[in-house]
Parts: sequence; structure tokens; C-alpha cells
Amino acid sequence: MEKFLDKDFLLDTQTAKCLFHNYCEDMPICDYHCHLSPKEIYENNPPVDISELWLAGDHYKWRAMRSCGVSEDYCTGDKSGKEKFEKFAYTLQYAIGNPLYHWAHIELQRYFGIDTPLSAKTADEIYNQANKTIESGDFRPQSLISRSAVKFLCTTDDPIDDLKYHKLIKDVSGFECRVLPGFRPDRALNINAGDFPDYVKLLGETAGVEIKSYKDVISALSKRADYFNSVGCRVADKSFSHVPYASADEETVDAVFEYAMNGGKVSDSDADVYKTAVFLALGEKYHELGWVMEIHMGALRNNNSLMFKRLGPDTGFDSVGDDSIAVSLSRFMDALNLKGKLPKTVLFNLNNKDNIVLASMLGNFQSDEAESKIQFGPAWWFLDTMDGMTAQMKSLASLGILGKFIGMETDSRSLTSYGRHEYFRRIMCSLIGRWVESGQYAFDEEILKEIVQGISYKNAVKYFNF
Amino acid sequence: MEKFLDKDFLLDTQTAKCLFHNYCEDMPICDYHCHLSPKEIYENNPPVDISELWLAGDHYKWRAMRSCGVSEDYCTGDKSGKEKFEKFAYTLQYAIGNPLYHWAHIELQRYFGIDTPLSAKTADEIYNQANKTIESGDFRPQSLISRSAVKFLCTTDDPIDDLKYHKLIKDVSGFECRVLPGFRPDRALNINAGDFPDYVKLLGETAGVEIKSYKDVISALSKRADYFNSVGCRVADKSFSHVPYASADEETVDAVFEYAMNGGKVSDSDADVYKTAVFLALGEKYHELGWVMEIHMGALRNNNSLMFKRLGPDTGFDSVGDDSIAVSLSRFMDALNLKGKLPKTVLFNLNNKDNIVLASMLGNFQSDEAESKIQFGPAWWFLDTMDGMTAQMKSLASLGILGKFIGMETDSRSLTSYGRHEYFRRIMCSLIGRWVESGQYAFDEEILKEIVQGISYKNAVKYFNF
Amino acid sequence: MEKFLDKDFLLDTQTAKCLFHNYCEDMPICDYHCHLSPKEIYENNPPVDISELWLAGDHYKWRAMRSCGVSEDYCTGDKSGKEKFEKFAYTLQYAIGNPLYHWAHIELQRYFGIDTPLSAKTADEIYNQANKTIESGDFRPQSLISRSAVKFLCTTDDPIDDLKYHKLIKDVSGFECRVLPGFRPDRALNINAGDFPDYVKLLGETAGVEIKSYKDVISALSKRADYFNSVGCRVADKSFSHVPYASADEETVDAVFEYAMNGGKVSDSDADVYKTAVFLALGEKYHELGWVMEIHMGALRNNNSLMFKRLGPDTGFDSVGDDSIAVSLSRFMDALNLKGKLPKTVLFNLNNKDNIVLASMLGNFQSDEAESKIQFGPAWWFLDTMDGMTAQMKSLASLGILGKFIGMETDSRSLTSYGRHEYFRRIMCSLIGRWVESGQYAFDEEILKEIVQGISYKNAVKYFNF
Repeated sequence: MEKFLDKDFLLDTQTAKCLFHNYCEDMPICDYHCHLSPKEIYENNPPVDISELWLAGDHYKWRAMRSCGVSEDYCTGDKSGKEKFEKFAYTLQYAIGNPLYHWAHIELQRYFGIDTPLSAKTADEIYNQANKTIESGDFRPQSLISRSAVKFLCTTDDPIDDLKYHKLIKDVSGFECRVLPGFRPDRALNINAGDFPDYVKLLGETAGVEIKSYKDVISALSKRADYFNSVGCRVADKSFSHVPYASADEETVDAVFEYAMNGGKVSDSDADVYKTAVFLALGEKYHELGWVMEIHMGALRNNNSLMFKRLGPDTGFDSVGDDSIAVSLSRFMDALNLKGKLPKTVLFNLNNKDNIVLASMLGNFQSDEAESKIQFGPAWWFLDTMDGMTAQMKSLASLGILGKFIGMETDSRSLTSYGRHEYFRRIMCSLIGRWVESGQYAFDEEILKEIVQGISYKNAVKYFNF
Repeated sequence: MEKFLDKDFLLDTQTAKCLFHNYCEDMPICDYHCHLSPKEIYENNPPVDISELWLAGDHYKWRAMRSCGVSEDYCTGDKSGKEKFEKFAYTLQYAIGNPLYHWAHIELQRYFGIDTPLSAKTADEIYNQANKTIESGDFRPQSLISRSAVKFLCTTDDPIDDLKYHKLIKDVSGFECRVLPGFRPDRALNINAGDFPDYVKLLGETAGVEIKSYKDVISALSKRADYFNSVGCRVADKSFSHVPYASADEETVDAVFEYAMNGGKVSDSDADVYKTAVFLALGEKYHELGWVMEIHMGALRNNNSLMFKRLGPDTGFDSVGDDSIAVSLSRFMDALNLKGKLPKTVLFNLNNKDNIVLASMLGNFQSDEAESKIQFGPAWWFLDTMDGMTAQMKSLASLGILGKFIGMETDSRSLTSYGRHEYFRRIMCSLIGRWVESGQYAFDEEILKEIVQGISYKNAVKYFNF
Repeated sequence: MEKFLDKDFLLDTQTAKCLFHNYCEDMPICDYHCHLSPKEIYENNPPVDISELWLAGDHYKWRAMRSCGVSEDYCTGDKSGKEKFEKFAYTLQYAIGNPLYHWAHIELQRYFGIDTPLSAKTADEIYNQANKTIESGDFRPQSLISRSAVKFLCTTDDPIDDLKYHKLIKDVSGFECRVLPGFRPDRALNINAGDFPDYVKLLGETAGVEIKSYKDVISALSKRADYFNSVGCRVADKSFSHVPYASADEETVDAVFEYAMNGGKVSDSDADVYKTAVFLALGEKYHELGWVMEIHMGALRNNNSLMFKRLGPDTGFDSVGDDSIAVSLSRFMDALNLKGKLPKTVLFNLNNKDNIVLASMLGNFQSDEAESKIQFGPAWWFLDTMDGMTAQMKSLASLGILGKFIGMETDSRSLTSYGRHEYFRRIMCSLIGRWVESGQYAFDEEILKEIVQGISYKNAVKYFNF
């Protein structure tokens, strides 16, 4: 029996061990998409205890606890840190096969030096020990990021954000990580949200554009993109259940836009008309700026209205949708490509049924503008599991070129989640190791080194032009 | 080479062997959903021969035989028991990788003490030996159920059923298994069936309700639910291609209902309007009664009209559908949850593309009303295979809490199918054993014992309040 | 570590080695569906060099190169053979996990006797060595086919084809392979193609039918089918994103047809009306002729308009679609079956989410007309990978009868792609070997021999009545 989480955790062949320990383990991290708060990074306050660090904002953990029958009081409620930690420990012992089990123990080992498996029995001991480590050590955000060897970190920001903290962070001495903004215009496209008209006004004011038509929305976003670019932004992100593609003439788009600005609720197909027009224009802008366009597809958000009213979005009530995505995605990319304006693009799916759709879609729009100009994004959120990551890499490998994959990002709100890069690298080396050792790929250490270091770090840095 | 079907069948690690033999093998069975006939159980007649026991009503076996080019005469036709058995044996030798191959051999070993692999060569020998065992032993339904250690058994019954046999069985002395009714109102929702108006009349008469509107349908069903509850029912079931969600005002629902009652064929979207209204009301009723609501999604039924006319439903001409299910399921559950009326719910999918949809949907509606109040039902029917069960458990494990899983039901029409619980437990122990032995979960015999016994039996008994 | 691509490549158990080497390795090939050119086979010209053989027409390789950032000049452009080969070798070293990596090396070993792994480092050496082998050996099409032991080879031909080359090939002395036509009426159904009216005229002229209505289209196709039959055709093929099923009366179908013949662009649902009517009639015709009907579902074609204009179809810009396919496929097959006119049918899917849909659909329409009359076609195109083939066989095995599977076709445009049959057989023996050695199927060498030889060759010959 392998010891749980020893140094060869998940490395099930000699080749995997060799590749991970010799070539991947010490590579830095390029976290090209996450949800860390630049304000928090700048202000650099230490956490009160491990409960704050772990449980104050992590919807993965809350979901697990709720699934174990734990009352909301212990998740987002006002129970004490110790009580919450005990409930989480109780939950974790039943979470066999859940990545949380691995993430939590990797974090305990790496950041706290704790080897004891966490369970109801060991909860109090570990709670005390971890808190002592926090008191005596440095668990401030910048320190956690630096200890994790993060060289590049792209946050996720609204176009109206002033990026004040990104600018301030740049001047913090001794903090080497480049914290860059990420342009995420979700609210400008979410035409059916209650606050859409207000948001559009705010966007216009921020950009200095009087917004009377959807083309003015585009102008305003474009100006903000220029501003983001000046602060170092190199990546734009967008979340969709499916990429819209409904072309229409300008008058139709404007009619839809006006209707929504006057508080009207537009139909799904009309919403797609607006979104298509604006998103196509954004794609062109990203191409002009040399940015990478990330598209995250497949989330079904805010399913529980009761809890949404109580806690707001991103609190653990999202799940995986099952829209058809192939046709409209293809048409959207083709429209940009036809104009020579398709930017470098990373496609992410949340439903594993779409692995083959995306892995094969890439090949339709590759070119010599970049090595794997169109990328298949790493397994993400509900797919950020051993099986999810392995399946994504196998799909990509079988239909594209795995050796040019840009690898992992965290997509996380947690400062200790950089262990997920280690987790990813172990799984990647394990997959490649099995192929090599079963005689499916000719062993050549030099080539394999280039491939695993590329996927761990180097490919991303090159791809994003950092 | 492992010997076929020896005592460590499928147990590929030491941990798996330990967990299965020490903790799971002798656990009783809680079969919370099946299609056994309470009449048959009560009347307790022995089978004529192994052909009657195996081939008289098992559409799994008929499908396999038809796939092997066997004429219908040997499936549902009037060939002799021996001839049918020979054709089945011929079929089985080509059925490598089919769960039927395992099920049949488990049944031969456990119920007949026969170790010889069944094939064309061995058919006659095994036929004779099995029949001798039947003659000399006790193969009556109650005996088979008792020998399988089934403690709870929920049948599937129409709301108009008088549950006579459930009441009679309760008083059979020496038969310890609790045989409980299951409420399945499919016909009351199937608004486009030719016999819908007649059924509604019958439902009204049975419930003592004059049915003039859809609200009267709800009243009638509600009364029948109360009656079922008084006979011990704790579970309601429903089969859908996808869960409907089309809200409408009462007048619209009634217009649809009246149209159908007058023999009109309603559109699919109108049918959804009616189904949504009635099913929401049923959900509330189940919550009030403390019942568990089971939803089976994804069957595409009665595909072969020719054979449907000849043999009726449930004769082996159903297959797997591919509707999108996420959005309407989410809206349906949310509507009940918003009113505080969402019952404990078990979600079953028939298409494995939906594993991730369901495994992630659970988390949207968990609460402290139960441990894993919303459950991901075990792999079922066409997914009731090694790969199907493993994939379901991996999905659940990675997105929920496997340790709180209520485990297997048979969903079977066959009295010897309790071997499928053994099959499931072996697969479950094998999966957990691999995780433990590869260092992915910290070995703790006490916790692992609780987990595997919970999944085998204890979690279900607690969840259903038996 | 297993040596890369040695004689036991992919054979990971003793049983797999035994089955492959003793029973499968030397079986002939029945390639019941491919895209080889009968003209090329007849004319029998040798290739100029390995670049022409490998890179002149293979969109798999072009896609891989484009994905590696290689310029189009090296794919379909005018760079030299040597330059193209170098770029391909560079690409291949990053293509770990891609079947191209295996295919290319199998071809290098089997046809060229080259064991050296291909990479940027070894490109020139291998290029020269391969070209010497071509110069000194026999690499003409008929020789490559004969050396691969291909006994039957079905091409893919338009109904208006005169099949001249098929007739000529029949008389080539010393060439034993039977090269048969395959009837593929895609253009007659593709009602929205720009050249549809012209094509219909041409079809009418070829068949000697004046086409005024859709029924005349059917008559013309029917006559051409008779002609194809007279030249030895036994198989018809059709590619769909999803099988249409929209029944309508004759006048409606004709109205749609006339509209399109007059250059009108018909809606998707109207197109389905026309396609349904014609495809149903074709199904009946195939049944009458005793042909096998192949249906390839799920391709999303010609995604990149820019490259389509430049290079035309089938140049590497297709990908995998995600339409729902179950309901209409079921209705279509049922309509034919109800009339007793459902031909033997092979169902192919391109999206692995549909494995379970097809594997379970088969069972709805089996009969004693053939062993596994409805077949689940082998993993194809983007699924023609180790994982894809394994998953297809597991799906089939768990829901149908693997022992009656007709096995592999190449679906290829390349004369050296017969190595894919070896690849398939190794994967098939490996899968079966693992089942046997882990005690999941009783070892019986006689039965296993029949199963693996059946899947390798014999089942197909029997099924197609060759």
C-alpha cells in the first residue's frame, strides 16, 4: 500500500517520478486566470486562523459540508472558527474520492507541515497546531504567493474597475509576482440582468462615452480595454452557458438594446443577438491588442433562489449545464477568423461531454500565429479533479498537440490553492509516465523534459507573451 | 490469471478484499426500488424450472438473445424451456463484457451451487443440474428474498392500486422482509396516452374525488398518497425523459387538461405545462409526508411499434435518450425549495453524459434536513454495469460526499437479481480499495468500515426512515 | 519499461499476447468502408517519396501540424517534400497521446522496416531511409493493399459515378482484393447545397429519369442502386449531423423540393422533411437489395470558411458536433421496421457522448435476420483512438453482444492506413485479455478464438454477405 500523500503521491511509475521531481516540482507558476482580490493582496493582512483562511470564502468547502448535512450556521453562519473547522473535518472524512480531500491535505503539508490525516478525531489537534503555525509564521497573502513561486497572476476584473490595486502592487518592494488585471465584461453582456441599464450608464461614465446604442457600448468597452492594456492586461475572459451566435443587422441589435435599457425583459434569442454583436466586436479588439480570449462555457448559475437572496452569487449554488455548444461556437469563431481577427483563444468546458467538441474544435482554427493558437483550457471547477484533468489531457492529446498545452490555472478565490498546480503536475506526469512505461511513447528524456516543463510553466509564459 | 468468479471476484486489492469480506458481504439488503410483484411474493409459488425463473419475464436476457440473432420464438415465444435455455447459453458465450454474463454466473453459484461457466457446450448439463436443485430445494419467492437477506423491499405501484397484497404479506408469519408500496403516478401525468381520460376517471373513483380540473387530479393523488402512506409507503417514483418545467397560470393548465380529457392530442409544451403543475403539487405532498422522491430520467421507451403491439411495454424495446435535462430540473427543484417544500430527492440518470449534471445539481439544494438530502441514485438499467457503477460513484465522490451515498437498489423484475447487490458491493469496495492502496485516501479501518457499511445498507435505512 | 512499439505493443497481458499473435495477427482484412480512390488503385502509380505518400492528402497530419503552429505552406502549400517531412517530424515529437504517433510509427515499421522513433532529430535520416525503401521496393497501391492482406475493400461513391474503375480493377490479373463500390447519396439529400438543382439534373440524366418531383429523385436513386448492385455493391453510406425524422404528406415534401430546385434556401425543418422522405425510401431499397445501411452521425463540417474557399472540403476543418440524436433516429428506424423494410444497419457516432445512445438503440431493432442485425460501428475519425475504440467496445459489450461485432474499417484516404487494423486488433485483444485475466470472463481458448477472429474479420464477411 502506498503511503497517503507521500513525496511520490500519484506518481505511479518511475518515469512519472523522474519527470515530476527532476523537472516539474520546482518550476514557477503562471496563474493566468484566478479570482484572487488585488485589494487583499495589496493590503496583505494575515488571517486570524485556519478557519478564516480555509472557510471564510471557499464555496467548494461549503458545498461539501452542506452535502454532509451540516447546517448553514457552520458554513456561512456565525459559528466560531473552531466549530466550523470541526464540521469541515467531519465532512472531509466521508469525502473519499473528492479533490477537496487532496487539496486540504496538500495545503496542510505544504503550508503547515502537518502530516496527520484530517478527520473528526484529529480536528482539534490539527486546528490548534495550524493556528500556532499561523501565529508564528508568515501567512500574509504576498508571502503565500511568493512561497508558491507564482511569477504571473491574472485576476478577473470588471471593465469599470479602476485597477488601483494592480498599480499599487506593482510598486510593492520585495514582491516579485506580476499581478495583472483580467478583462471580464460579463455585466456588459448580461442584458437581462436587473441592473443592466444602471451598469451601462456606469460603464459609459467610466469610459467617457455617452451610450445611446450598442455601438457605444462597444466603444466604451474598447476604451476600457485600452486602459486595462496600459496597466498590463493580456487576457480577457467571458463566462457563457453557451457561446451565442445570432447575427442580425444593426437596427435589430439596437432595438434589442434599447428595449433592455428601458427595463424590458428580452427573449433568450434577442439576448443572443445583442451578445453576438458585442462579443464579436470584443473579439476583434482583443486580437488588435494581442490579448488572449478565454471562454468559459457550461456553468448553470444561481440555481437556489432562496440562498441567492440570502448570500448572493458565488456561494456554492452553481452547477453544470448541458446546452449544445458546438454549432454556435464554430460560427462565432469562424466569423472572426474570416476577417483575420480571431485572437488567441482558450476554450474551457464545464461539462465533460464537451471534451471532444472542444478538443476537435481547436483544429478548425489553428494557424502559425502561435503554437496551438487555439487552446483547450485545463479542467476547471467541477472538472478540476484527477479524472477531469486526466480526461481533458487525453482528449487534447488524442485530437491536438499535448506538448504545446499551456497547462493549469487555479481559477480560485483561495490564497492557499496553489497546491493545485502541484496536483495538476503530478497527474500530468503520471499520465505521461504511464504512456512511456507501457511502450506507447518512445522514451527520450530531453523531449519529455521539454514537454513537461512546457506544460508546467513555459508554454503559458510564451503563449501569453509575459 | 484470476480464476473466474472466485471468492475475490473483482476485489483487486487487499483493502478491497478486507472491506468486502469483513464488512459488506454479510450486510442485509435495503432494496428501496424494484419492480417485483407483491402478488407473486404473496402467492409464493415455486418456479417450474430455471427457464421460467430466468427467461419468463427478463427483458435484459431477451434483448441479448435477439442481439445474437435468436428468433423471438425462443424469447417470448412458445419454444420449450430447454430450447430457450440453450439459446440463452449460446448467447451468453458471446456476451463477454456484458453484466448479464456476471449476473447469470453469480446466480448460478449463489442459488444453485453451480461453478461451471455457461456456454453452448455446457447448457444441457447446467439446465438439468439447475432444475434438480429447484426440485429439491426451496425456490419460492419468499424463500429467495429471505435467503438474500432483504430487510426492506419497495415495490412500484400505481396510485389506484388497492395494495391488497402488501397488507396480506405483512401478516405472513416467518417472512421477515418488509414489503412496502412505492407510489408511481406515471399514468396520471402521461397526458398524451390514449387511455388518459379513462385513467383519470378511475383515479377519481378510487380516491372518491369528482375530477373536473387538474386541481382535482392533485386532490385525488394526494388522497391516494395518504392511503399509500398508511400502508407503509415511504417513497414515490417518477420516470421522465426529462423533468418538465413550464410554469403557467391555473386557467392555462386547466385548458390543457380539459383538451386532453376530451380526447385531444396536446403538444409537447402543453403537456409539460400540465405535468409541471401536477408534479410540483406532488413534490409538496411528498415533503409533507416525509417521503423520498425518486426521479428516473432519460429512458426512451417503446421504440419498436411492431413489437409494442405484439408484446406491450417493458419487453426489451427501450433505450437511452439524450434530452438536455439540467435547466428544467434545476427550475423544478428550485420552485419547491423556495417554498420550503423540497422533499428528500434521489436523482437517477440513464445517460452517462448526465453524470456530472446530476452530481453537481445535488449540491445546489442540500440542507441539514438529512445527510446528503439530495442523492445521486446508483447506476441503473443500461448503466447497471461495472463501468456504469464505477463512473456514477466517481462522479458522486468527486462532486459530493460518497460516504453518505444510499447505495444500490435492484430496479429489477427478477427474484434472483439480488446478486446485483453483491456485484455492486464488490465494485464499490474495489474502487475504494484502489484509492486507499494507491495512497489517495488515508487508511483508517474504522472510518472505512463506516463508509462501506453505510453505502451497503445503513445509509439507506437511515435516509428512508425505515 | 516496455519497449516502444515492440512485437507486444499494447498487449498488456499473457492472454492478449496469445490471442493476438496466435489468432488475429495473420487474419486478412475486410475494409467495409473507406475513401480510397478506385482510379488510384487501378492506375497503380508508385509515390514519389514518403512525403507524397504521407502528406499529400492526409488531413489528420495537416491538422496536427497546424496545431503545432506550422504554416500552411508546409501542409497543403508548395514547400518541398523534405521540408514538409521535417515539420511533420517536429510536430510528431509533441504529439504524445495522439494516435498519429502510433499510426506513423506502425507504418514506418511495417512498410519501411524503420524502428527509430521519428522526431526533429531523426527526421532527415528517416526521410532518406524511407525514400530509399520506396525506390527499391514496391509501394504501388495494389501492392500496398495486397501486402496488407485486404480481401474486401468498399469505396465511397456518388450515385452518378459510372464505376468504371471498379469494373476495370475486377479484371486486373494477380490483384486478389475485391474492390467494391459503396453507395453514398449525400449530394442527393443535401437540399440546401448551392449545386443541389444541378446535381439533381445530372442524377436524372445519369439514371434516365426525368425528375419533376421528389419521387422521381427516389426513382433515379433506386435505378442507380440497382446499377451499383450489379457491379457488386453491398453497402450504402450516409453522413448526417443527426438522422432526420420529420414526416409529412407528399405534397408538402414536393413543395419543399420544388422550392429548392428553384434555387430557394429551405429552412432546416423543411430540409428534414425532404431528407426524411428520400432516406426512408432509400432504406426500403437497401433492404430489398440485401444491402447494409451505414449511418455516420455527428460530424460538424467545413467550420473554417476561409480555408474552405481556399482548399475545399475534407482538408482538416471538420470537428465533432453535439446534436441530440436519439429520438429522430429511433423514429426513423421504427418507420422502416414497421413496414418490415429495415435493412441491416451500422450506426456510427462521432461524439462519444452518444456511445450509450447507439449501443442501446441497437437492441430495439434486432431480429433473426442476422446476428446483431443492427451493429454499433467501430470508433471512427476523431474517435479512432485507443480510448475511443476501447470505449466503443465497452459500450457495445455492456449493452449488446461483443462477440458478434463486425469490427474495424479504416474510413481512410491513405493507402498505408491498414496498420490501423493491427492497432484495432491489439486494442481489442488487450481489452479482452484484461477481462479474462482479472477473472471477469471464464477462459476458454476455443470460444475466445472464435470471438477475436470473428471481430477481426469473419463476422464482417458473414454480415456483409461477401
